Amino acid sequence: MAASGPAQVKATVALAMGDPAGISPELTAKLLALEDVREAANLVVIGDRRVLEDGARIAKVALDVETVEVDEPLPVFSRRPMFVDLGHLDPASISRGEVSCAGGAFAKQNYLSALALAKAGAAHAVTFTPFNKGAMRLAQPDYDDEISFSANAIGFNGEAREFNVLDGLWNARVTSHVPLSAVAGMLSTAVIVKGLELTHAAMAAAGFSPPRIGVAALNPHAGDNGNFGREEIDIIAPAVREAKAKGIVCEGPYPADTVFVRARAGQFDAVLTMYHDQGQIAMKLIGFDKGVTLLGGFPFPIATPAHGTAYDIAGRGIANVGASRNAILLAAKMGRQRAAKGGSIPRVSLADARRALALDAVPAAA
Amino acid sequence: MAASGPAQVKATVALAMGDPAGISPELTAKLLALEDVREAANLVVIGDRRVLEDGARIAKVALDVETVEVDEPLPVFSRRPMFVDLGHLDPASISRGEVSCAGGAFAKQNYLSALALAKAGAAHAVTFTPFNKGAMRLAQPDYDDEISFSANAIGFNGEAREFNVLDGLWNARVTSHVPLSAVAGMLSTAVIVKGLELTHAAMAAAGFSPPRIGVAALNPHAGDNGNFGREEIDIIAPAVREAKAKGIVCEGPYPADTVFVRARAGQFDAVLTMYHDQGQIAMKLIGFDKGVTLLGGFPFPIATPAHGTAYDIAGRGIANVGASRNAILLAAKMGRQRAAKGGSIPRVSLADARRALALDAVPAAA
Repeated sequence: MAASGPAQVKATVALAMGDPAGISPELTAKLLALEDVREAANLVVIGDRRVLEDGARIAKVALDVETVEVDEPLPVFSRRPMFVDLGHLDPASISRGEVSCAGGAFAKQNYLSALALAKAGAAHAVTFTPFNKGAMRLAQPDYDDEISFSANAIGFNGEAREFNVLDGLWNARVTSHVPLSAVAGMLSTAVIVKGLELTHAAMAAAGFSPPRIGVAALNPHAGDNGNFGREEIDIIAPAVREAKAKGIVCEGPYPADTVFVRARAGQFDAVLTMYHDQGQIAMKLIGFDKGVTLLGGFPFPIATPAHGTAYDIAGRGIANVGASRNAILLAAKMGRQRAAKGGSIPRVSLADARRALALDAVPAAA
Repeated sequence: MAASGPAQVKATVALAMGDPAGISPELTAKLLALEDVREAANLVVIGDRRVLEDGARIAKVALDVETVEVDEPLPVFSRRPMFVDLGHLDPASISRGEVSCAGGAFAKQNYLSALALAKAGAAHAVTFTPFNKGAMRLAQPDYDDEISFSANAIGFNGEAREFNVLDGLWNARVTSHVPLSAVAGMLSTAVIVKGLELTHAAMAAAGFSPPRIGVAALNPHAGDNGNFGREEIDIIAPAVREAKAKGIVCEGPYPADTVFVRARAGQFDAVLTMYHDQGQIAMKLIGFDKGVTLLGGFPFPIATPAHGTAYDIAGRGIANVGASRNAILLAAKMGRQRAAKGGSIPRVSLADARRALALDAVPAAA
């Protein structure tokens, strides 16, 4: 069995094509032409062949994929990336750089399909090229963010969290899209311990053993011994102690303006921040273009480039594929750990997987 | 008069030696050996000759200064940096890397002397090498920060503000050493307009004509049109409009996690942030080692390196002089504008200047 040990197992990674009016088509085509991406995983791409061909033309790459029918069981292994053609969008019907309901519906159906494959066990991880939030909202008015959408789609009631990953440096946050004035009131020792547990678990699944987590303070100078706020003393330090007692390798709270300098220098693998901008200011300065957003806590990892649809440069073939490549490689790495532990992959078709999820049927061809 | 036009006027810059247990002595000695620092201003250094000689020995530089007695009128011009020897600290009495009351008293007396010279008109700007806050508090129990200490010392009742300056990028903040939970409640259109006015004035005094100021939002995604907080709509945007109407070149509010990326790319000369860490996270990541802290709003500029006393590397001669050099060059530049406008420099001694400020007499020699 040595030859099929954990390190040799390849994960199956589902890749949903994102918003068709932005750089997603060209990014998808570029990805499929990258040797390390093709080697890292068995890729199953979901989209429309015409949109993908348009992307390949823009990206000036040759398309080399294995087409799989919607109702055909997915091969467990394929020498080339597999492509499931939903045939649901004629690229001529889309204006590049414009938000549209049709664009949102395209990305939504591709993404639901990728989630369905992973939920059915036919993929170990899910990835997608960028969505446009406005288009998603046109296609589904109650669309809020990827975490709640994904949780609803697969019927997941647990805790999921967004992580930002940049060259091996991870950032997770305790609070996110809330007013700054609400942040302090939302902190508790329990939610911080939970954040540390989720961070530890997601990073362990990505191969850190164990991850070293730096915890950011809330107040300037970490509160200066209580002079500028007591949350460090009353809430955060007890959470760090409690998490340590559970075997999580973590330290802090440290002043937010130095914890990232230390993390960048290699002293931590991750920083847990108390609020959105605390981490985002740092991560965007450290390397906006290469970052990956990972949704962790779901039964399978979901990864996407941290950047957006870049409508301003769509169609010019100049979009940088680096973040998308990093997203796939991270998903493949995390998927491998699942593949090594899991049993055999069920031979299901995309149509089967979607039915099992009680989703709408695969949309009719456009 | 062409030869003595504004660009040719040299400022007189007072330089107070900071905490003697850290890197301040070696930094001061290194500074005095730098040709561009010696050229930029008429320097008046205040300290103890023995401490400075110790610094020169550590830094492996030759000392080349003009000694001026405490009660001797300062020369208006000197070919070499002037040194006023207060003779108040035997370096043998100080343990390197240790906080002490004697160390705090040394820095405090040097700094009071520098402030007195500037207040008397005998210096156009003040600079100092790093203080240790713990030592300052031992020497003066009610010591809070440099702004309040300086204001008290010179009897200044106006608005002073701390600016962080890094390679031509400035950062000022509307709130500072307060709990994060208090920030939102402290914002008003009036205080933000005041912050923009102070930033504009300080930068104009440093030669920006006019400075381009980016204004940071308070909430994630700048509040996402009011979904995550309304301060952008109700408070910050009106402040930007009001400041623009006063002729200040400013824009925003922009999301905090992209405004610094844009500023670093040259789109702004300064960022006005709403709270301490918002700017400090960014500035420390952009270049911790080279930053300058400028106290603006006082009748004269006060500049110091943004880093601290570095007790861990003191005495090894490896301290980087870059930030201290930048602090002096900035003070010299701002001082030149004052010198060009001001009249002749009064010929006062340090003892006279201190008496005029109603400070303690110059301390007795140790």
